[in-house]
Amino acid sequence: MRAAALRLFARHGFAAVSMRQIAAEVGVQAGALYLYTPDKQALLFELMRDHLEELLADWRAPDAAPVAQLEDFVRHHIRFHLDRPELVFIAYMELRNLTPENFAVIEGLRRDYEDRLEAILRAGQQAGDFAVPDTKLATMALIAMLTGVTTWYREGGRLDRAAVAGIYWDMVRKAVAA
Amino acid sequence: MRAAALRLFARHGFAAVSMRQIAAEVGVQAGALYLYTPDKQALLFELMRDHLEELLADWRAPDAAPVAQLEDFVRHHIRFHLDRPELVFIAYMELRNLTPENFAVIEGLRRDYEDRLEAILRAGQQAGDFAVPDTKLATMALIAMLTGVTTWYREGGRLDRAAVAGIYWDMVRKAVAA
Repeated sequence: MRAAALRLFARHGFAAVSMRQIAAEVGVQAGALYLYTPDKQALLFELMRDHLEELLADWRAPDAAPVAQLEDFVRHHIRFHLDRPELVFIAYMELRNLTPENFAVIEGLRRDYEDRLEAILRAGQQAGDFAVPDTKLATMALIAMLTGVTTWYREGGRLDRAAVAGIYWDMVRKAVAA
Repeated sequence: MRAAALRLFARHGFAAVSMRQIAAEVGVQAGALYLYTPDKQALLFELMRDHLEELLADWRAPDAAPVAQLEDFVRHHIRFHLDRPELVFIAYMELRNLTPENFAVIEGLRRDYEDRLEAILRAGQQAGDFAVPDTKLATMALIAMLTGVTTWYREGGRLDRAAVAGIYWDMVRKAVAA
């Protein structure tokens, strides 16, 4: 059911998809869906929340110097998001369709993730490894840059994932270097 | 009519908005809209095409060294996109709703813009000012990073536009530096 909702939301947009269409995609009657979810809003919210909770659970900063932590963050971020292009698309595009309460939860989780990157940048700044005039802005800039890979990367293209991650890591490393 | 369509597409998504709703937003009967546009697809396409044509017309590389060209590109890109957050959102989100012919036109315009940045990176690479192992990837990375400003920047916030552009320019400059 989640997978069907994700596919349809990504293809047509949340507002244009009905519970009836989701049921048809799953291959059940619309009534059967309501045994599992109260409504379409709950489905959207759970997709976005679980995506971010999985992201937070999937990565911890290694016990290492800030530069090594940053490299680990960059490579993990690219890998995790390349595995889930539809969720990335929805997580950005459908924020406007969350209720205010649900939006607050999603924003909180997103901030938790951003805070992890910012903590690395601050530690590196204090250690003299990085020169980042504004760690908050650098956090937003780097996350946008890394997530952008999902908009153009195609499996089987000119460069494989490892090559892409290596080139992005090189740019990130230099962008924050002291 | 364009402004009304843009507002509604950005708020609800292209697929969820009807010509009738656009007419109501303009304050005319639906029939009147068809005097000006053949359909909703044409409206979406023209919004996206005109956005990119304006972007291309609004910026030419200055007659200067690659570093100065790059700085001019960065500052212009941020300014232009911060002025048009709804168009930025739609240009990314509604690509999936273009017909194949319209998609090809939009992709071509987008590539023309990317090519301008890549030309700067290549020139700087040849002059020994930049060390960019893959100019195509660097182009995609930098555009995603810069466009991302529209997702978090709020007028009247902690930093004004000039401060934000200065900090982003600093990161870009370092990211591609030799």
